[in-house]
Amino acid sequence: MDATEFRKRGKEMVDYIADYLETIEKRRVYPDVEPGYLRPHIPDSAPEEPERFEDILKDVEKIIMPGVTHWHSPYFFAYYPTANSFPALLADMLSGGIGCIGFTWASSPACTELETVMLDWLGKMINLPPSFLAEKDGEGGGVIQGTASEATLVALLAARTKAIQRAQSENGTLTQGDIIGRLVAYTSDQAHSSVEKDGLIAGVKIKQLPTDDAFAVRGSALRKAVDQDKAAGLIPFFFCATLGTTTCCSFDKLSELGPICNEETIWMHVDAAYAGSSFICPEFRHLLNGVEFADSFNFNPHKWLLVNFDCSTMWVKKRTDLTCAFKIDPVYLKHDHQESGLITDYRHWQIPLGRRFRSLKMWFVFRMYGVKGLQEYIRKHVKLAHEFKDLVLQDDRFEICADVILGLVCFRLKGTNELNEALLRNINDSRKIHLVPCNLRGKFVLRFAVCARTVESAHVQFAWKHITKLAGELLKAQKQQD
Amino acid sequence: MDATEFRKRGKEMVDYIADYLETIEKRRVYPDVEPGYLRPHIPDSAPEEPERFEDILKDVEKIIMPGVTHWHSPYFFAYYPTANSFPALLADMLSGGIGCIGFTWASSPACTELETVMLDWLGKMINLPPSFLAEKDGEGGGVIQGTASEATLVALLAARTKAIQRAQSENGTLTQGDIIGRLVAYTSDQAHSSVEKDGLIAGVKIKQLPTDDAFAVRGSALRKAVDQDKAAGLIPFFFCATLGTTTCCSFDKLSELGPICNEETIWMHVDAAYAGSSFICPEFRHLLNGVEFADSFNFNPHKWLLVNFDCSTMWVKKRTDLTCAFKIDPVYLKHDHQESGLITDYRHWQIPLGRRFRSLKMWFVFRMYGVKGLQEYIRKHVKLAHEFKDLVLQDDRFEICADVILGLVCFRLKGTNELNEALLRNINDSRKIHLVPCNLRGKFVLRFAVCARTVESAHVQFAWKHITKLAGELLKAQKQQD
Repeated sequence: MDATEFRKRGKEMVDYIADYLETIEKRRVYPDVEPGYLRPHIPDSAPEEPERFEDILKDVEKIIMPGVTHWHSPYFFAYYPTANSFPALLADMLSGGIGCIGFTWASSPACTELETVMLDWLGKMINLPPSFLAEKDGEGGGVIQGTASEATLVALLAARTKAIQRAQSENGTLTQGDIIGRLVAYTSDQAHSSVEKDGLIAGVKIKQLPTDDAFAVRGSALRKAVDQDKAAGLIPFFFCATLGTTTCCSFDKLSELGPICNEETIWMHVDAAYAGSSFICPEFRHLLNGVEFADSFNFNPHKWLLVNFDCSTMWVKKRTDLTCAFKIDPVYLKHDHQESGLITDYRHWQIPLGRRFRSLKMWFVFRMYGVKGLQEYIRKHVKLAHEFKDLVLQDDRFEICADVILGLVCFRLKGTNELNEALLRNINDSRKIHLVPCNLRGKFVLRFAVCARTVESAHVQFAWKHITKLAGELLKAQKQQD
Repeated sequence: MDATEFRKRGKEMVDYIADYLETIEKRRVYPDVEPGYLRPHIPDSAPEEPERFEDILKDVEKIIMPGVTHWHSPYFFAYYPTANSFPALLADMLSGGIGCIGFTWASSPACTELETVMLDWLGKMINLPPSFLAEKDGEGGGVIQGTASEATLVALLAARTKAIQRAQSENGTLTQGDIIGRLVAYTSDQAHSSVEKDGLIAGVKIKQLPTDDAFAVRGSALRKAVDQDKAAGLIPFFFCATLGTTTCCSFDKLSELGPICNEETIWMHVDAAYAGSSFICPEFRHLLNGVEFADSFNFNPHKWLLVNFDCSTMWVKKRTDLTCAFKIDPVYLKHDHQESGLITDYRHWQIPLGRRFRSLKMWFVFRMYGVKGLQEYIRKHVKLAHEFKDLVLQDDRFEICADVILGLVCFRLKGTNELNEALLRNINDSRKIHLVPCNLRGKFVLRFAVCARTVESAHVQFAWKHITKLAGELLKAQKQQD
């Protein structure tokens, strides 16, 4: 395929994508396929000779689309959103076309420098303390990670390095193994499973702290754990706070937790993967209060800020905390400006070496929506969540299971877990809308997350009508059984 | 921006990318900017109101392009290649448009299933032993990682888990910390720096083994290290072999190393990040001999197989080795088919949770080039490298520093490191071509890597003429000084 054919096929693909997104409502949001559905439709091995683009595009519709979960359907209310916007798609096309790899400053200066500036823009949009910004001569700054789990891992590893150095400076006879065995990290019992996985990777203990009635970790819980662990000879070194948990969008109390972390030299990482985007609205910014105590902060514009996956933005107060944990400099990656102190080699800020030109997506989205456009977008989703919550509250058979603060509503039928499991199964089996569950203190709960860019009140109303219809049938069948 | 405007702007972007790639020769391959060049051109903060697309695209040309290192210029001979092909660009556009997140099978079955089948296709293209394939009921299979460094880390962590379990089953009183402190991994003294970084992350010792005259690790070197370490009470558990090192494209002797690893229950991971793509050609497949002894194997189609970054393909013989190391199952990620044994939840195979629909790129590229087209592409690059090598050999002032096997030529002026450093500086300062150096046993060496999709003999000839002109000037100036 040469550039001439690419011009033709590229334009066809633009139309295909526009068609797909304009008519996505008509597709079944959740696919009706069994495991292994795809293999019989595809040859056993790659073709020897080239095939035609038309045939491939036909196969996309015939083989791929029936097995796609349509995350951007307005009937998709599962997990949390993943972003998809036209400006981000355009920027990603450009990023692919340029196709540079930005592991060092020299490997593509624009790739590194736009990223640093975009992270400053976004930091200001959420009113992050200036100590997290790079600006012209700050000690902090931001970086794009692939996912929130990688951001947590990077923070955890940097904290581990600092803790080992600290322990060895106090007692020179301790080996790294001795110290790692005594390190202990904390997070909420509502935190994302990836935090546990990060602990596994780093080889350190992670303890889940109990949460209060609002599913939030309080200062008292951390204080108690730290005191007990110190008394037992352990070394508390890391706390991952969550703003907007995956289960129910609860918020740990940073303003209580932060001072304890600072006092005890515990690295505080704040994971606001989903909720972080809302902080661009002044009325939600208070949810971030206390971040001034944190060492690192992360959220995912690729969830709720219209920047397509992957774009997980992370800030640190001291960039040297990251680079000291990872810095390894072979000759083939050295370049002239390396020791100037002015440049950033982002490979020292992350797990992988290679990295794409992802900041273009942020630049395009921020400029084409403007901050006002992005704020409107967040507010619309929060409004729709409250609309759904009000519908639930008007129906005595249902209960709300957690405060509705942003775009997530946790609800269930009053009754057993089995009943709610059956309801969710019926919802997903009918494939008109898609939800996933969570477990809140042993209760099986349905999560209704406002996700799609194009979701409107009509879709929320339809979803509720559908849920209550299925619930009514279920309760009736149950009554007949009793 | 609505779908109608996206249709218009998307087509403009397709033309912009086609123009960029068609005229890339005319751009300076290596940018002439100083650190910090970009910030003064961009406002301090994001705009409140939306801006126009035309203005953004103008800024791309004005602000971004002057700071881009043009990896796809035919005058780019630095690092190793990164892929950029039109079919892959089209597939990535589609992947962005669908915008699904494939962390579990249910979150988008097509995303998972196409990946499994594509990894089987590619495995067969390089004649990988069937034990690495998933097929219908294999115990092995493949996965797309972001980068080779992540693949090595995943293998290292899986090996660590197995080693800990093994040690604890032999001696139940040992703690995880005790065991980790005794674990030792090996790699070549020519291996990529990311292996060392992976060791830092996993908290295990990594020892670099000495290489022979061809910069290859031999069985004898591994045997010696293992015996010494075992005698010292350490537990050898992991060996990362390299096929096609970053420095000079040398190949560790798998057929000597594999049996030792198998005998000593050492996990052998084979990193063929760059060289792996060449194994689709029968005449280069012998370089992979011995992979049958490996536990895991990885290479980067995003380097040399025309699949745009990121696409680092990894295979394992036992998929349970990976999933046992990482499996953590919260309710919100459970789904009906999970325990059927038929499905793959790729989040258990990787560090991050989220993942894009990257296998579309493989599908489009393999079908639109055909295996024959891809083989031709590899052969063309290897031929050009030999053409360059022959030019070097014809000039007595220069020497070749390592065997030329694939698309990399390591060469230098006969003389001091300072002389060669000056030559490389002059080459990159003149910005007509771009190279990076490596260090081979203390010698400063220039690397000439055939990289771009569009590179032809004329570009190679131009590069050599340019290098010899600069070398001549340098030698003359030196002579005048003496």
